[in-house]
Amino acid sequence: MTTPVSSSGFFISFEGGDGAGKSTQIELLAEALRQTGREVVITREPGGSPGGEAIRKLLLEGDANKWSPISEALLMYAARADHLERTIEPALKRGAVVITDRFADSTMAYQGLAGDLGEKAVTTLYQLVVAARGPDLTIILDLPVEEGLKRSGATGDAEQRFESKGAAYQEKVRQAFLEIARREPERCAVVSAKDGIADVAGRIREVIQTRFPQLLSR
Amino acid sequence: MTTPVSSSGFFISFEGGDGAGKSTQIELLAEALRQTGREVVITREPGGSPGGEAIRKLLLEGDANKWSPISEALLMYAARADHLERTIEPALKRGAVVITDRFADSTMAYQGLAGDLGEKAVTTLYQLVVAARGPDLTIILDLPVEEGLKRSGATGDAEQRFESKGAAYQEKVRQAFLEIARREPERCAVVSAKDGIADVAGRIREVIQTRFPQLLSR
Repeated sequence: MTTPVSSSGFFISFEGGDGAGKSTQIELLAEALRQTGREVVITREPGGSPGGEAIRKLLLEGDANKWSPISEALLMYAARADHLERTIEPALKRGAVVITDRFADSTMAYQGLAGDLGEKAVTTLYQLVVAARGPDLTIILDLPVEEGLKRSGATGDAEQRFESKGAAYQEKVRQAFLEIARREPERCAVVSAKDGIADVAGRIREVIQTRFPQLLSR
Repeated sequence: MTTPVSSSGFFISFEGGDGAGKSTQIELLAEALRQTGREVVITREPGGSPGGEAIRKLLLEGDANKWSPISEALLMYAARADHLERTIEPALKRGAVVITDRFADSTMAYQGLAGDLGEKAVTTLYQLVVAARGPDLTIILDLPVEEGLKRSGATGDAEQRFESKGAAYQEKVRQAFLEIARREPERCAVVSAKDGIADVAGRIREVIQTRFPQLLSR
């Protein structure tokens, strides 16, 4: 579905395991889009609005088993509802391009397909909160698990709750993102994150050039 | 449905508007039950577990419109899932009587039937989180709205977010609780809270004596 970009905004999510370089690639894409004169709003999940960031703190502080799978998913979706209503939708209404570092696919991958909660509960929450308000385009940055763990370990990120669950879980998460892309090929594009930053950025721009050429034209 | 009390515990919720005397009546009932030698756990919502209480803070701090109806309901249910799993179910497994000050009927009354979210979304969350794990008995303390507002104003409670929405909303909440009782007469008992503390306590004990006589026998 091609959304008329200039009048109603455009919503892009970046997904993938930790260490895949999402935030770097988001910055580079935002720069390219701003050069066409567009307003670009960079945001993230969990978080992205005052309420969402308050819930993020609850989610990421403390040990990895602080919340049961269902509580965790409900908190994620409470944050997502706030993020959609207070940050994403107002920006789209202004005509901005919104780029978010993680969105609903992360809950489906981490808690639904790879985690203990299961797909059905996550789908129920998605329908309740997001429904037709999801991304126009989702870039899934794909990276072998060992490579991702090595890279994200090197950044010394303090909020590594989800990473503490080990390589077998991370491999399930990787496969979950690839499964989501297979199910929704029109919305999702899988981009290998193995090569250098500029190569990956070039491939992301190719995806947009092919699917939504109006986004990168002045 | 009569649950075998001695082996598996018994789950009671108190519902009703603010100022109906829920916490006083809970204390009096707990005392009567303890005199039969039973373990009684008094708890509350939102809250009732470390995670639930952390979410309670997010819900009750700040102004009444801090959260959209759907975010508020998701936070309530995230807290409820934690409360069920960490406090209520372990106590029931020990054979205790659990008495909670508010439970799922409050979300249905305040956000679902009287609020802007609507019944369907709240029912979806109930099925996802509570399903068959709800109360064996619910006491709905019923009081005319003006009387409740007068009494709760007199206590000087700082957490009056929901009360700030005015008398018309409170009347809708009252009618919502009565509607819930009509729909589930086997689980719910409406008790008028207009008379003195001892009279109301006596009526609550009558309900239990009639429906679950084994609870008050030694």
